[in-house]
Amino acid sequence: MSGMDHPPHFSDERPYPLQRHLGFVLTDWSEDYCRLELPLEAFLMNRQGIPHGGVYATLADTAMGYAGCFAPKGAPPRWAMTLNLSVNYLAQCKGDLLIATANRTGGGRKTFFADACISDNLSTKIASATGVFRYRSSQP
Amino acid sequence: MSGMDHPPHFSDERPYPLQRHLGFVLTDWSEDYCRLELPLEAFLMNRQGIPHGGVYATLADTAMGYAGCFAPKGAPPRWAMTLNLSVNYLAQCKGDLLIATANRTGGGRKTFFADACISDNLSTKIASATGVFRYRSSQP
Amino acid sequence: MSGMDHPPHFSDERPYPLQRHLGFVLTDWSEDYCRLELPLEAFLMNRQGIPHGGVYATLADTAMGYAGCFAPKGAPPRWAMTLNLSVNYLAQCKGDLLIATANRTGGGRKTFFADACISDNLSTKIASATGVFRYRSSQP
Amino acid sequence: MSGMDHPPHFSDERPYPLQRHLGFVLTDWSEDYCRLELPLEAFLMNRQGIPHGGVYATLADTAMGYAGCFAPKGAPPRWAMTLNLSVNYLAQCKGDLLIATANRTGGGRKTFFADACISDNLSTKIASATGVFRYRSSQP
Repeated sequence: MSGMDHPPHFSDERPYPLQRHLGFVLTDWSEDYCRLELPLEAFLMNRQGIPHGGVYATLADTAMGYAGCFAPKGAPPRWAMTLNLSVNYLAQCKGDLLIATANRTGGGRKTFFADACISDNLSTKIASATGVFRYRSSQP
Repeated sequence: MSGMDHPPHFSDERPYPLQRHLGFVLTDWSEDYCRLELPLEAFLMNRQGIPHGGVYATLADTAMGYAGCFAPKGAPPRWAMTLNLSVNYLAQCKGDLLIATANRTGGGRKTFFADACISDNLSTKIASATGVFRYRSSQP
Repeated sequence: MSGMDHPPHFSDERPYPLQRHLGFVLTDWSEDYCRLELPLEAFLMNRQGIPHGGVYATLADTAMGYAGCFAPKGAPPRWAMTLNLSVNYLAQCKGDLLIATANRTGGGRKTFFADACISDNLSTKIASATGVFRYRSSQP
Repeated sequence: MSGMDHPPHFSDERPYPLQRHLGFVLTDWSEDYCRLELPLEAFLMNRQGIPHGGVYATLADTAMGYAGCFAPKGAPPRWAMTLNLSVNYLAQCKGDLLIATANRTGGGRKTFFADACISDNLSTKIASATGVFRYRSSQP
């Protein structure tokens, strides 16, 4: 996580509390697109000893939200709130790094839609997700 | 969270890693029903300074999974995997404690369905969720 | 279906094309609530000889949309568009009449959320659904 | 619809009741893939005079179910039941023909997952959907 002490070139944003607590890193962000990575740590596991389904949901929600809110360095941040998040759990993780990619797939000035895919570093497609979001005029 | 050092009377289970990391507590568990509580801590917040949507998804997924897998004290544990999780974000949290309740709503020996509601200690209805789960024959 | 020639007392609306084509009837409509009925006819069946899943989705979408758009007799109609519809298929129909009930569960002036339940005349709970909708300022 | 009197080369199946009643046609079907078309007729419209959201849900459910159940000519048919269907409504239809394409995206012998996209003949991306299905051992 030391890389997060130096915000990546595509963003002025510093990691926020839950992001630091879980350890995911924004590794790409551009118009309508976002990519996150999360190294698997012991504290992410469920009662079955595998990553908790909520971790995938959190990554999907985050990546899709960012995908619809890109702001280049120096531009004011954009905010959105999730209306619906739907996640399908396709397969179990086999690697030790989670990768979430998301694309904005539609919408306009008020709402947007996005898709996300969660895979691991062995290219296992673990989960897919869709989201519906509403833009906010300001930070809550 | 000290209460979790003494597993509640309705379960032999000890909190698992993500449960400890986020801090949610199983406060009720019976056939087809589960209730969780999560005190809001700073590390649960998103980039807007409010609880991350993934936290609600995690609570909903957890509570619904437990609702379909009740095992009384002394009975062997039951396991399920989430197939689909869908969360609607109804309103913003106003309190400082999250409460998730879930009910198994249908299914049979192979799959089950559940509904969940997330509210806060001021009775704000924050999120609703549905889930589809598949029972597993053994721990992965 | 002859009842539909005489719009029910709670609405000035006459059945619209798909409604007539499938045969569902608005049997109750009030603030935040709607109830529909659909007699099962042969033309509603799928390749397995049971009601097509799309029929349940259609009833759920319709009932939830109405639940958020109640307008008493004489008031101008209200319009909404579906953003997300999620349906869980709990059990198979055993009766010969489908009953859909829906409640608006949250939201504000711009968007609303609803839940629906589809059962049959033998009280089989066949499907549950949730929806996210956006109000429209006018008819498209 | 006269083409449906002659089952397409990729299937022995004849159109079933709801398929005939709504008018959709199977235009492609292969392992893990399905494509349907539906010419827009007046009876498909909702109270706002546009295609009913349930029509898109029906096409998505159908196309995804077929995508997971391909059986070549002469092979015994395969059956599935929908567990969850989630549809996002991205934009309004501008054309006069709906096109649904679906891909099986994961799963195994017991369950499968699929994605679908509904567009029109002007390439408007109208809706996206995901589904979770369970295989059945026999026709109900």
